[in-house]
Amino acid sequence: MLDHNVIQGRGFRNVVQDGRVTGFQFVLRQPNYRGTAGSLLDGVGVVVDGERIPDHVPLWTVQGRTYTLDELRASTDVRWQLDEPAVITVPKPGGLATGVHRLEVVVYLRRPYFPPAVSRTTFTAAATGVIVPPAPEGGLKFGVSTYSYTGDIYTLMTLEDVLADVADLGATGIEILGEGNIPGYPAPDAAWVDTWHGLLDRYGLTATNYGSWIDTTMWRDRDLTVDEGAAQLQLDLRLAAQLGFTSVRPKFGVTSWELDPHPIWEGVVERSLDLAADLDVVICPEIHAPTPIKHRATQGYVDFIERTGTKHFKLLIDTGIFNTEPVLELSEEIEVEDGEIPMHLRPLAVPMADLVEVLPHVHFIQAKFAEVDDDLNDLHVPWGQIIPTLQEAGWSGWLSSEYEGRRDPYRGRDQVRRQHALLRSLATSRG
Amino acid sequence: MLDHNVIQGRGFRNVVQDGRVTGFQFVLRQPNYRGTAGSLLDGVGVVVDGERIPDHVPLWTVQGRTYTLDELRASTDVRWQLDEPAVITVPKPGGLATGVHRLEVVVYLRRPYFPPAVSRTTFTAAATGVIVPPAPEGGLKFGVSTYSYTGDIYTLMTLEDVLADVADLGATGIEILGEGNIPGYPAPDAAWVDTWHGLLDRYGLTATNYGSWIDTTMWRDRDLTVDEGAAQLQLDLRLAAQLGFTSVRPKFGVTSWELDPHPIWEGVVERSLDLAADLDVVICPEIHAPTPIKHRATQGYVDFIERTGTKHFKLLIDTGIFNTEPVLELSEEIEVEDGEIPMHLRPLAVPMADLVEVLPHVHFIQAKFAEVDDDLNDLHVPWGQIIPTLQEAGWSGWLSSEYEGRRDPYRGRDQVRRQHALLRSLATSRG
Repeated sequence: MLDHNVIQGRGFRNVVQDGRVTGFQFVLRQPNYRGTAGSLLDGVGVVVDGERIPDHVPLWTVQGRTYTLDELRASTDVRWQLDEPAVITVPKPGGLATGVHRLEVVVYLRRPYFPPAVSRTTFTAAATGVIVPPAPEGGLKFGVSTYSYTGDIYTLMTLEDVLADVADLGATGIEILGEGNIPGYPAPDAAWVDTWHGLLDRYGLTATNYGSWIDTTMWRDRDLTVDEGAAQLQLDLRLAAQLGFTSVRPKFGVTSWELDPHPIWEGVVERSLDLAADLDVVICPEIHAPTPIKHRATQGYVDFIERTGTKHFKLLIDTGIFNTEPVLELSEEIEVEDGEIPMHLRPLAVPMADLVEVLPHVHFIQAKFAEVDDDLNDLHVPWGQIIPTLQEAGWSGWLSSEYEGRRDPYRGRDQVRRQHALLRSLATSRG
Repeated sequence: MLDHNVIQGRGFRNVVQDGRVTGFQFVLRQPNYRGTAGSLLDGVGVVVDGERIPDHVPLWTVQGRTYTLDELRASTDVRWQLDEPAVITVPKPGGLATGVHRLEVVVYLRRPYFPPAVSRTTFTAAATGVIVPPAPEGGLKFGVSTYSYTGDIYTLMTLEDVLADVADLGATGIEILGEGNIPGYPAPDAAWVDTWHGLLDRYGLTATNYGSWIDTTMWRDRDLTVDEGAAQLQLDLRLAAQLGFTSVRPKFGVTSWELDPHPIWEGVVERSLDLAADLDVVICPEIHAPTPIKHRATQGYVDFIERTGTKHFKLLIDTGIFNTEPVLELSEEIEVEDGEIPMHLRPLAVPMADLVEVLPHVHFIQAKFAEVDDDLNDLHVPWGQIIPTLQEAGWSGWLSSEYEGRRDPYRGRDQVRRQHALLRSLATSRG
């Protein structure tokens, strides 16, 4: 799907020619109610961060070919369709800096069926866009979770749109929610499995982590047995492997405010380890606020690793545990029975030393966040400490964006771009 | 695509069983970020126009089967997927009256991975919905133009979503814009043509009118010739016939504030009449404000019909000419060179007697409108005069909704439902 805003979320980038940055590009959808011949296009005025570019300057790329305005005006064989984007290229030596920019656009379009005095019509649009720098070579790997697009996926964006977005911002890993993103779960048809692998190829993405659930209180009158829990986990392990994922995060039901996992977890995992080894998929329980690293739950997982000596059970860290400020804008409503503020809203501020201690057991990091502002400051998560800690320890797994802030339409994808701009800038500066 | 609002625009209707209205239905998307087992659903509270229905009362239809809440809680083989709707049926003898209703919904969902005290989570949503009565048998036919969905089509809704919407509100005719809605226009591939006919079958829709353009000032340095104009019209006639349409409205460039058509119109049409007859497609010029019926342009078309004796050139009336109030909220921006208010915004208030006079020549009516309020009053168009006039004259063509008000997301589809509720109520009351 195209974005509702005429200025599209994808495609905002600097243009590199012969090794030099010569300008920037963005993408528009046709703002009129019909597609039109290219000869009716009559310029596009651009204001970027207050700097005005005259309407005859930008180049247009329509239906795969690039035109000057004069070429468009004289054209006979090109159209800007209603369902096709146009790429606007603005010459600007050095391009735009990493970060958030303000774009204002006026598209001029001649409409012969309007009275001549008003037939040169205008369509205005404004948006912010984020220039994301390339990821540094080696070391940390940068991915995104479909969770970041909650509310927008299947409404404003297809699953393919999400993958296109992730590739467009220069990420290389895609994390999904098994029960969320697999049509016909738990038994997708073979055609969809082929489609999925085709999408990974098309967008150059690596399947990273697969989120699963073990709903221990699936029924109100009894808890799941170890048998039932293991069947669920093994179903997801097989499905994850079939789709190319290399880890599965089972989210077990919990028994306390501190998210102690239901006691079946250990039996369920233990009897699934052989299958995980066969499939070469790592089972990763999630360390998620309000559970810190120094906690009986985390210690239980570490003890399990040491006792079994397995290579197929490791930790997944959700970076919400490092928050130094509370996230006051909830992305969801939670019913609180006695007026108590849920513990998971209190910032845990887990120290970096605790992270360093368990890092040898950490397979995957969900880069949970709620807001990165216009100056690329994260309002809650101390990335300036986390990234250097990971780099100094030589950790080289995936950082997978998990946006969990306000669910305004299209906000998640914009915030993910901001977060990647921030994380990659930090990673590059220490390079 | 699903709607961004948890309460969906489609599927709000009364339920008829054994000839009696027993309740009403609406459709929800899964409000959580993952699909869930049916047993985790824990009720849905509904408030309709202030009347509260307890959360255990509504029935759920998920994956094609209908459940009570207790059946859902005990279920083992049903899921509410993220990409699948659920139908909620509320028992209410007599159902809901024609018109606009306020719906508030609370979905209860158990999430075992939340601390037990807060694991019964809530998702709230609110929306207005429109109950549209059936169209009366015989007489006027009720359709919709894709133009009504401008801005939302290809962004929030696919073309198929639009057809599903049109069918859902009980309309039977679909009007399209050739240059807008045909992928690869002017040469769609054969597979798409098959898809189109499949969609018409699936949604029980008749292809009505096909909007085309003859851009007489296609290039800035010269006007189209009659040859070029005829080639364009004939291309669209062939494409329209291939897609099952029975009329084509060519929008010629104009030469005045009163929309006098470019003088090539007559030659272009005359040399296309044989093809129109072969294809049995009626060419319909549009009578559109600020051109009234008593005007040299309209008279020119009538003279042409009388002179040629053709059955394949008739009038298309845009109901904006009957407006009694100005439409002050523009749906698009128009550049006005000297501060003058464009003539097309001044209400023409064409009298019904003028309509009656040309009605024998009228093939199609575009039911243009900008706002129908919560009490089903159109703020600009006097439908209370138009509908009886058409019925008394025994006119039995298509009234095709053309929403042209504010382009807020999803507003067009809601307004079309309101307009159909209004028009069908008027048509039925006169029976």
